[in-house]
Amino acid sequence: MTPSHSKIALCLTAALAATMSEARAQVQPAAEAAAAQQIQRAGTQASVPGPAAFFTGQARIDPVWPADGDIHASGGLVTFEPGARSAWHTHPKGQRLVVMAGVGLTQEWGKPIQEIRPGDVVWCPPGVKHWHGAAPTTAMTHLAVTGTLDGKNVEWMEKVSDAQYHHR
Amino acid sequence: MTPSHSKIALCLTAALAATMSEARAQVQPAAEAAAAQQIQRAGTQASVPGPAAFFTGQARIDPVWPADGDIHASGGLVTFEPGARSAWHTHPKGQRLVVMAGVGLTQEWGKPIQEIRPGDVVWCPPGVKHWHGAAPTTAMTHLAVTGTLDGKNVEWMEKVSDAQYHHR
Repeated sequence: MTPSHSKIALCLTAALAATMSEARAQVQPAAEAAAAQQIQRAGTQASVPGPAAFFTGQARIDPVWPADGDIHASGGLVTFEPGARSAWHTHPKGQRLVVMAGVGLTQEWGKPIQEIRPGDVVWCPPGVKHWHGAAPTTAMTHLAVTGTLDGKNVEWMEKVSDAQYHHR
Repeated sequence: MTPSHSKIALCLTAALAATMSEARAQVQPAAEAAAAQQIQRAGTQASVPGPAAFFTGQARIDPVWPADGDIHASGGLVTFEPGARSAWHTHPKGQRLVVMAGVGLTQEWGKPIQEIRPGDVVWCPPGVKHWHGAAPTTAMTHLAVTGTLDGKNVEWMEKVSDAQYHHR
């Protein structure tokens, strides 16, 4: 592994959390935030492009809910255009992916690529190196429910090469 | 409050967990369960009717993922036919509802009923008494992400009366 391929301990959580805090501040008085039912309305959370450092091709993240002190897992929709995929990565507390639309691919390090379709639910256990994304000619959207440990929910690694992506 | 209206400490979790464990056993060898990526395929988790003790009208629960030792929150789709709603209840670790389809209603005890639509995300904090369901003439489906504390995720209370449901 070259230095550029070494593990990068960055995550999307900070940017998403900031976006979501801003949106919540608009709809919910601070005094009620702790004890009252809150409704985050559709259209109040901006879409975020998947950073080029962690994605190949075009991906978009739509925040759904943040991790907090009661439920230590965030929810976000991720939409991959055809051929787009995440870099290789692990999660310190795991991740559940619920495929919502399209056709996708996922792979655990050292195992074959698997196709995933709407209604499939993928469990990525803590520390298991993997990637996920769209099929080569079909887009895919999944809900990603990602556990958080000490404020961190992902460890990014090297990109998925074209040879790795097309090896089926 | 009459005895029949007193808090009933039952929850759906046990029935759902049993259903999901059976389904997982079919697709995943036990030896790999701890460390490998797992795919729960669409169509392998049976729908469960919403029990009459906890729902008014017709509701259906489709399990998505179970709570586990890494992510202490389960995910399930709940579909309410027009006019159907949950009983009043609280959650020990809170719940996030993501409206997927239709038009719904939700209410926190002592506050006005609020309409919820696709893309809205409701946060029900721990211990806050509330209900949720469909609009009177329109069905509603939401994803419910429910935190678990010591194996329990809901405390059921009295039914939502017709007078309460139609008070707008």
